[in-house]
Amino acid sequence: MKNFIIPDSEFSERTKKLQSVLASTALDAILVFSTESEPAGVRYFSDYWPSFETAGVLVPKTGKPFLLIGPESMAFAKSRSKIEEIIKMKDFRESSMPDYPGTKLVDWNEILGDYKIKNIGIAGWHMLPHTIYKNISEILGIENISEADEIIRKITLKKSPAELDCLREAARISELGFKAVLENIKPGMTEAQLAGIATGAMMANGAESTGYPIWCCSGPNSTQAISRPTHRKVQEAEIIHFSVGAKVAGYSASIGRPIVLGQCSDEMRKFMQVGLDAENMTIDLMRHRTVACAVAKKVQAFITEKGYRDSILYGPAHGCGQMECEFPFIETSSDFILDQGMVFMVDVFLAKPDMGFRWEDGIIITDGKAEELSNFKRKINIL
Amino acid sequence: MKNFIIPDSEFSERTKKLQSVLASTALDAILVFSTESEPAGVRYFSDYWPSFETAGVLVPKTGKPFLLIGPESMAFAKSRSKIEEIIKMKDFRESSMPDYPGTKLVDWNEILGDYKIKNIGIAGWHMLPHTIYKNISEILGIENISEADEIIRKITLKKSPAELDCLREAARISELGFKAVLENIKPGMTEAQLAGIATGAMMANGAESTGYPIWCCSGPNSTQAISRPTHRKVQEAEIIHFSVGAKVAGYSASIGRPIVLGQCSDEMRKFMQVGLDAENMTIDLMRHRTVACAVAKKVQAFITEKGYRDSILYGPAHGCGQMECEFPFIETSSDFILDQGMVFMVDVFLAKPDMGFRWEDGIIITDGKAEELSNFKRKINIL
Repeated sequence: MKNFIIPDSEFSERTKKLQSVLASTALDAILVFSTESEPAGVRYFSDYWPSFETAGVLVPKTGKPFLLIGPESMAFAKSRSKIEEIIKMKDFRESSMPDYPGTKLVDWNEILGDYKIKNIGIAGWHMLPHTIYKNISEILGIENISEADEIIRKITLKKSPAELDCLREAARISELGFKAVLENIKPGMTEAQLAGIATGAMMANGAESTGYPIWCCSGPNSTQAISRPTHRKVQEAEIIHFSVGAKVAGYSASIGRPIVLGQCSDEMRKFMQVGLDAENMTIDLMRHRTVACAVAKKVQAFITEKGYRDSILYGPAHGCGQMECEFPFIETSSDFILDQGMVFMVDVFLAKPDMGFRWEDGIIITDGKAEELSNFKRKINIL
Repeated sequence: MKNFIIPDSEFSERTKKLQSVLASTALDAILVFSTESEPAGVRYFSDYWPSFETAGVLVPKTGKPFLLIGPESMAFAKSRSKIEEIIKMKDFRESSMPDYPGTKLVDWNEILGDYKIKNIGIAGWHMLPHTIYKNISEILGIENISEADEIIRKITLKKSPAELDCLREAARISELGFKAVLENIKPGMTEAQLAGIATGAMMANGAESTGYPIWCCSGPNSTQAISRPTHRKVQEAEIIHFSVGAKVAGYSASIGRPIVLGQCSDEMRKFMQVGLDAENMTIDLMRHRTVACAVAKKVQAFITEKGYRDSILYGPAHGCGQMECEFPFIETSSDFILDQGMVFMVDVFLAKPDMGFRWEDGIIITDGKAEELSNFKRKINIL
């Protein structure tokens, strides 16, 4: 079996790439901040994914990067991190703020001083806790700490061959999760139980975890764009909508499908078909080198023409990589050009007051084409 | 089957309790901030648990509280929230910062102005993003925004009968997760596969999700206090250590157990027995009304006497409720008194350079006693 990993050399290349961008800025370093539920930045540079605690990677303009972790994760981080130097800091402890009497922890004065950092950029800015901002800015001054997500986005935007392989594998396993649902679903099973079946199948087939907190939402719950499974029992003659995704070596894919058990009303079928047509239309439009908003506008016009304008919540695709949903977004306001190496989740979510669904599959933008990451049972599934 | 939920009335009582504390402070309101991986505060007051996005609950000194959510979660939040008024704000969107062209969103000026809030306390302070702090403090001034976790902790410290029932059920299901592992484990299965088996079993038996990102860590990985499952295949004659927990209606339990398949060396057995004795000793000490540090000191002295002082990373128990690990902590520095209605996870983690394990079970402090939440296979398990 092929081993889906990002090679060690790629981690050091990522740091070098970031340092080459830093060279032309006034910044002395970038601090990448990540959490248990938003691990992308730290994982990108170190392969470490925190749990319970948070984490950071500090990349100075020159020299080696270091990984900043909470007090309980040294053995865990050592086993995972591609960055050799690992430092325990109180600022990355659990939000319940344990005390750790007697534990030796490093503070920002020491780190910023040792590495002569006077001007720092932050990636993961939207998540950065104020406590960390405050501790750093008290040393450097608020004029010397700034958002730096743009710099990281430029580096992570186009995926390497190893990243693409991980995403292909994550999509393959996501399909197996949905397949296990199709093989086992019966009226009376709970949404949570079905999510558990998908999870077990993905973990048995090579997922390191789910790609995000996956869900099954049925009947009235099917209108939820973001959801979580409940104890509701799935029934016949209603939409049961699945968002199932696996994570492989840090890369998350997803497939979204509605299912109907038994009788499917004409309105349900018509509504799901418009969504399915919109998904296929999005994929076809993305096969051509084009500005992203053109795709969003055409798909929006199609759905509007079919009478479902009010069912649209967001544009028809979003970036995908270490987060199942990441920059960039394909919205009617998106002015970037679709380019080789970008990866998207085509994600058509539509909801009316009484029913909703998501059609979702990943694609890789290749040379004037789009490679589909998944297509398993991309059809109206009535069981 | 009993329905494990927190009754609606209890949610409004929680708000009233917080408002009665607020009455004697200079604060006009408290903002509780929570995330996908740290949902406790928002869930406590609203029953809403964000995914992808973050969330807040704003409780003014008088009047109704409101739930603050990201742009994609309205249908989800409406189906879950016990708080009627729900407001979409950009500050609670995903960390990848989608644009949402055309979506109507409310800003802080409007909210703080409408409710005449001039002085605000923040719970979830250690997680609060700087971006939200900045937006609020630009309106109120930095002297009028402050940490308020202490206030919330006083309210959540002792659990209600409904909360205790949810924790008992979460512990019962956690045992079933571990039982499924015992019934299925074989050398050659991967850690991730075993975590998937535990997850599937818990979801089929009433868990709404895992209580935290559960793990199995084996052989050299067993030394990790916090961990995640890998693709390593479990083997005979090594410690395989499980931390498995279910979540029920927002309440998380856990059981921690080492397993050995086949041959168990004398050193492994001796080391695991010291941990098991330390766990039982901790439970017995906690049956008596005592100051928390006395428990931690006695257990530390016992482990030290057995020759494993260097294997201790933290104290022998921590609070448990909506987070599997929450305030308060039983450390050698803890000066609070164990009191009726508090719930703890007794959590003895020990690691040497080559092996480690966790023994973990929940207890409820009752009138001069301790009710054990789980005890399934709390023995040296050699299969």
